[in-house]
Amino acid sequence: MRPVKVGLLGLGTVGCGTVNVLARNADEITRRAGREIQIAMAATRDLNRPRNCATATFELTQHPETVVEQPDIDVIVELIGGERPAKELLLRAIASHKHVITANKALIAEHGNEIFEAARRHGVMVAFEAAVCGGISIIKAIREGLTGNRIEYIAGIINGTTNYILTGMQDRGQEFAAVLNEAQKLGYAEADPTFDVGGVDAAHKLTILAAIAFGIPLQYDKVYTEGISDLTREDIRHASELGYRIKHFGIAKRTPRGIEMRVHPTLIPCRRLIANVDGVMNAILVYGDAVGPTLYYGAGAGADPTASAVVADLVDVVRALTTDPENRVPHLAFQSGALTDVDILAPDDFETAYFLSLTAIDRPGVLADVTRILGDLDISIEAILQKEPQAGESVVPVIILTQKTTEKFMNDALAKIESLDSITRPVKRVRVEDLG
Amino acid sequence: MRPVKVGLLGLGTVGCGTVNVLARNADEITRRAGREIQIAMAATRDLNRPRNCATATFELTQHPETVVEQPDIDVIVELIGGERPAKELLLRAIASHKHVITANKALIAEHGNEIFEAARRHGVMVAFEAAVCGGISIIKAIREGLTGNRIEYIAGIINGTTNYILTGMQDRGQEFAAVLNEAQKLGYAEADPTFDVGGVDAAHKLTILAAIAFGIPLQYDKVYTEGISDLTREDIRHASELGYRIKHFGIAKRTPRGIEMRVHPTLIPCRRLIANVDGVMNAILVYGDAVGPTLYYGAGAGADPTASAVVADLVDVVRALTTDPENRVPHLAFQSGALTDVDILAPDDFETAYFLSLTAIDRPGVLADVTRILGDLDISIEAILQKEPQAGESVVPVIILTQKTTEKFMNDALAKIESLDSITRPVKRVRVEDLG
Repeated sequence: MRPVKVGLLGLGTVGCGTVNVLARNADEITRRAGREIQIAMAATRDLNRPRNCATATFELTQHPETVVEQPDIDVIVELIGGERPAKELLLRAIASHKHVITANKALIAEHGNEIFEAARRHGVMVAFEAAVCGGISIIKAIREGLTGNRIEYIAGIINGTTNYILTGMQDRGQEFAAVLNEAQKLGYAEADPTFDVGGVDAAHKLTILAAIAFGIPLQYDKVYTEGISDLTREDIRHASELGYRIKHFGIAKRTPRGIEMRVHPTLIPCRRLIANVDGVMNAILVYGDAVGPTLYYGAGAGADPTASAVVADLVDVVRALTTDPENRVPHLAFQSGALTDVDILAPDDFETAYFLSLTAIDRPGVLADVTRILGDLDISIEAILQKEPQAGESVVPVIILTQKTTEKFMNDALAKIESLDSITRPVKRVRVEDLG
Repeated sequence: MRPVKVGLLGLGTVGCGTVNVLARNADEITRRAGREIQIAMAATRDLNRPRNCATATFELTQHPETVVEQPDIDVIVELIGGERPAKELLLRAIASHKHVITANKALIAEHGNEIFEAARRHGVMVAFEAAVCGGISIIKAIREGLTGNRIEYIAGIINGTTNYILTGMQDRGQEFAAVLNEAQKLGYAEADPTFDVGGVDAAHKLTILAAIAFGIPLQYDKVYTEGISDLTREDIRHASELGYRIKHFGIAKRTPRGIEMRVHPTLIPCRRLIANVDGVMNAILVYGDAVGPTLYYGAGAGADPTASAVVADLVDVVRALTTDPENRVPHLAFQSGALTDVDILAPDDFETAYFLSLTAIDRPGVLADVTRILGDLDISIEAILQKEPQAGESVVPVIILTQKTTEKFMNDALAKIESLDSITRPVKRVRVEDLG
C-alpha cells in the first residue's frame, strides 16, 4: 500500500520533534499504523536556518500554500501556532479535502466551532490531541475512554511554565520574579511570559477540555482567568503551614446552576496526588460519576512530548483511512502480522537493585563477612541499616540496600550469606526500582 | 436509526454496574455514541437472586447460549469471568458474527491469541478495556495514545487488593494477616485471596500490557510472579527509614537482552508520585522514548468503575458500526447536533473556599471585626493563622481559611474588611479546592 503522505506547516521546535520521532520510530509506527507515514513536504519561514532535525528526505518550501494544495498530500500537520496565517491555511487544507492535525490550542479554542463545521462539510478529519497538554492523551481519554460517565469536574495543572515557577517558589523559597527569570534562561518561559503566567494558555486548554467533557460549544470568552504573578513566597509558606500547596489550576465544574470555567491559583491539600505534580509536568484530574477520580500525568510541552501527540493523531488518521472499521485498532496495538518474538528473560537475568533483610548474631565481624561476599560478586552497597537487638535477643536485624545487579549474582551471594554461621535465618529480599 | 442491541452474560457486580451506568447516563451516552445502546437480554445463573440493578427492560435467561445466538443482538458483553464457559461462549458469539466485549483478564491473557484470530476470521471486534485496571483506560492510552513512542517500560500498581493491604500495613503498622482480614470484611479481598495476594491477577494484566506495549504475543506463562504475603510490618518500616515505600508492582521492561515481565513487591523512592498511590487505587507508569514518563491513575475494580470501561468499549464499537471512519469520534466528544447550551456561570456565582491574607495593625479587636464581617455574610471560618509582627513592624499578617461561599458574598466581605481602619492593604485571596 502506498505510504500516507504528510505535509508539515512549521519546522520549529515541535515540527522538528515530529520529524525526529517519525524517523526514529518509523518501524514501530508502521507496525502499529499498518502503513508507512512519510513526510512529503514542509513549509518553513527560513530555508537556511540551522535546525535540530534532518530535512533531506522531503521537500522544503517557504510557501505554506504550496504544501496545503499539493495534490498527493493526504494529511496536513499545522505547527505554526497563532491565528494567522494558521487559520486560513487549515481551512484551505480542509477545502482541498485534506485531513488536518494541529497543535494550535488558541486556534481550536477560539475558532474550533468554525473549523469543525468546515471539516464535516468536506468529509475530512481534524485532530488536535497535541493542542492540550502535549504528551498526555487527555483528549482521547475524555472523548473515548470516559464515554460512559457523566463528568462532574476537571481540574488540571495544564501549564508547565506556571507549575515550574510555583514549584521553584515552594521548594527554594524564592520570589516569583527570580524563578521566572530562571525559567526564561532554561527555556521553560518565553521572553514575554504573559501568555503563560497570565493564564491565557491555560484558558485555551480549559475551553477545549470543558467542551469535550460536558458537551458544550467552545466558549473561550467565558473563561474566568487569573495569573500567578501576585503570589509571594509568604503566601506559599502560609498555605504550606495550613497543609496546602498552591498550584495554578484550570477548573471546569458542573454545578446545579450552570458550568464554572476558571483558571486561577488554587490551594489544594498537600496529601492529594495532584498537589505533588511538580516542575514543568502537567496533570489533569477528571471526575466521572461512574469511574470516580482519574488522573493523567505527563509532560505538557517540549519537542518530543508534543510530537508524541502529533504522531498519535497521525496514526489515528492513518488507521481510519486504511482499514475497515472493525480492524481499526489492532488487538495488541501492533498489526497481527507485525508482532515480534523478542526473548522474554528468565528471572536469573533480571537486573534490579535489592533491599536485603538479614537476621545476624550480634557479634563483631558479621558485617565484614557479608559485605565481602557482596563485594566479591561486584554487588555495590548503597546503604546499610543496623538495628539494635531487641531486649533479651542476641540477634539483630541488618538491612542492606544494594545497587543494581543481576538476579543470578544475587542468588549466589544469598546462598553464601545464608551459609555463614552468624546468619540465623533465610535472607529476605525485595527488589528496588528507581522509576525516575 | 435502530438501537444497538446488547446481550449481557453475567449479572453479578460488574454486570449490574453496567446495567446501572447504561440506564443512568443513557442520554449522555447516546449523545456521544450517536445511537442508542439497549440491553436486549441477559443471562444469569439464578433468575430470582436479589440484585442491585433493575432488570425489567430486558429479557432474563439462565441459558447464555440463547443470548449468544439471538439473531437481533449485535454485541455480546461477557462478564462471567474465568475460563469456562466464558471462552466457549465468546468463540460462539464470534462465530455468530457478533462483536464481543469482555472484562475477563484471565481469558485474554491466556487465550487472547486464539480469540483475536477467530475475531479476524469472522470480521468482528473484540474489546477488553475492562480487563485491565477497571476504570483506567490504559489499553486505549497505550494502543492509541502512545503510538508514536518506543515504549521503554511499564510499571504499575495493578491490583487493588494488594495495594490496600500494603497501604494498611504502612499507615497503621498492622501485620499482613490483620489487614487482609479487614480487606475481606470490606469486600476488597475475596474469601480465597490467593489470586490477588499471590500476584496471579496482576500477572494476567501485565501479560496484556506487555503485549500491547512491545508488540509481542501474549505470554502469560513467562511472567515471573511473586506475592506479598511474606512482607512484614518491619520490612515496610525499614524501607520507610531508608526513604522508600513498598508497593506490589507489575513491571514489563525492555532491556538490550530481552524483555523482563515480573510481578513482585518493590521498593520505590517515596518522593515518586506513584509511591503515593494508596488504598484500592491503581496507577500505571508508562515510559515512552518521545513522551517520557506518563502516569494513569484511577479505580482498578468495583461495579461502576469497571462498568465505565465496559461502556467505553460499547461506545467505541457503536461508533465504528454507525458512522463513516472520518466521523468516528465527534470533535467535541458529543455528536455535533447534540451539544447543549448550559449556562456558563459568571465569577460572582462561583462557589469555593478561600485563603485570605490580611495585613492588620497589631491591636486588640481587629480579629473580632474581621470575623464578625465574615459571620454576618454566613462565611464560616476553617482556620486562622496569626503571625508575629516582624521586628520594628506594627502590622501583622493574618491568614484566614474559610469554608465554601459564593464569590459574591466574598466580594462583599472583602469590601467591608478593606474599609476597616485596622486593615492597611488590600486583602489577597486565593481560592481553595478540596479535590477529594
